[in-house]
Amino acid sequence: MKLNDRGLLIVISGPSGVGKGTVRSALFQMEGHDLVYSVSMTTRKPRANEVDGREYYFVTREEFESYINEGKMLEFAEFVNNYYGTPLDQVTEMLEAGKEVVLEIEVQGATQVREKMKDAVLIFIAPPSMEDLYRRLSSRGTEPPEIIQARIDKAKREIDLAYMYDYIVVNDTVENAADRIMAIIRAEHAKVERTIHKYKELLEVNNESK
Amino acid sequence: MKLNDRGLLIVISGPSGVGKGTVRSALFQMEGHDLVYSVSMTTRKPRANEVDGREYYFVTREEFESYINEGKMLEFAEFVNNYYGTPLDQVTEMLEAGKEVVLEIEVQGATQVREKMKDAVLIFIAPPSMEDLYRRLSSRGTEPPEIIQARIDKAKREIDLAYMYDYIVVNDTVENAADRIMAIIRAEHAKVERTIHKYKELLEVNNESK
Repeated sequence: MKLNDRGLLIVISGPSGVGKGTVRSALFQMEGHDLVYSVSMTTRKPRANEVDGREYYFVTREEFESYINEGKMLEFAEFVNNYYGTPLDQVTEMLEAGKEVVLEIEVQGATQVREKMKDAVLIFIAPPSMEDLYRRLSSRGTEPPEIIQARIDKAKREIDLAYMYDYIVVNDTVENAADRIMAIIRAEHAKVERTIHKYKELLEVNNESK
Repeated sequence: MKLNDRGLLIVISGPSGVGKGTVRSALFQMEGHDLVYSVSMTTRKPRANEVDGREYYFVTREEFESYINEGKMLEFAEFVNNYYGTPLDQVTEMLEAGKEVVLEIEVQGATQVREKMKDAVLIFIAPPSMEDLYRRLSSRGTEPPEIIQARIDKAKREIDLAYMYDYIVVNDTVENAADRIMAIIRAEHAKVERTIHKYKELLEVNNESK
């Protein structure tokens, strides 16, 4: 019996190269979940195989900025002259429908979610070590050493923001990391602040019916 | 990789008749755990099949009271002229050895643990309904209706103390309840306040070795 009907907002975040996407995808492949992925909005142009509404919602810079100005973004950031972000309304709708909404976002975005949605569950995906992160970034084989070093430096700064999260999950193996996230989701539903209201209500009704 | 080496103090508590003992026993039968059960101390006489140090530590009233007076009890209560309680030293030792220490205690004892060990994980085992609790208490077949009613009344008062716990786990089925507790234990180990210190340390060491 689940005492909390409202879905959870699960934020999967962490340094670039830590494997957030792989962990998220392993999580969605697990059985018995009710997770939905919130598609981000961006101003960058779609790539050949990308579909609007699947990889991203592709919008113009003007559209994105009007969302920002009207307070309709849960979080957003600008990278290489393009905006990326999460529209608030779709997240709220899915949560009210009892879905567990998963966001996979950068650390910068996660700090905005922390401010706007106090009851979001923020999970910091951490590398087992800096060497490991370096190996992962290098193995992509697409970036020059100075870019990789810049990413490592950024990761070190971001680790200082981990205190702002609720959980730290080490990505030692993808399966372990996904398992831990699933345990976190189950545990969060049982948290007293999410359950006590419903639980008391349930017992009141029963008391009266006696 | 577990970032928190210290064991957790897991308190399984809730109204009389809710099935705490059955849930605890199902939990211990699960695989891959590192749980230890903390044996309580009592002044009541051992029953025929009870062994000192297994069911309880059997002590005299004088011994128990000297433990209380010396601040050596994590929690205790008196029922029907006998003391029952948890000695602090054995719990502390097991936690430091990295064990997950499970206590199965009454609501009164749980409030004392909350005060003495801020980082204990308090789990309130709840009946799916008051009717269900009534059925469980009646099916024991050992108590007169007025005693059962007294237990129900006490359960209602205890439910008002549930806000003091960290989690509410409904005992709809024993397997579900045990599964949820296991998820809570895994999630608690990933909590940022338990992990961030160790995690930063880990990365520092790696930085220096580069």
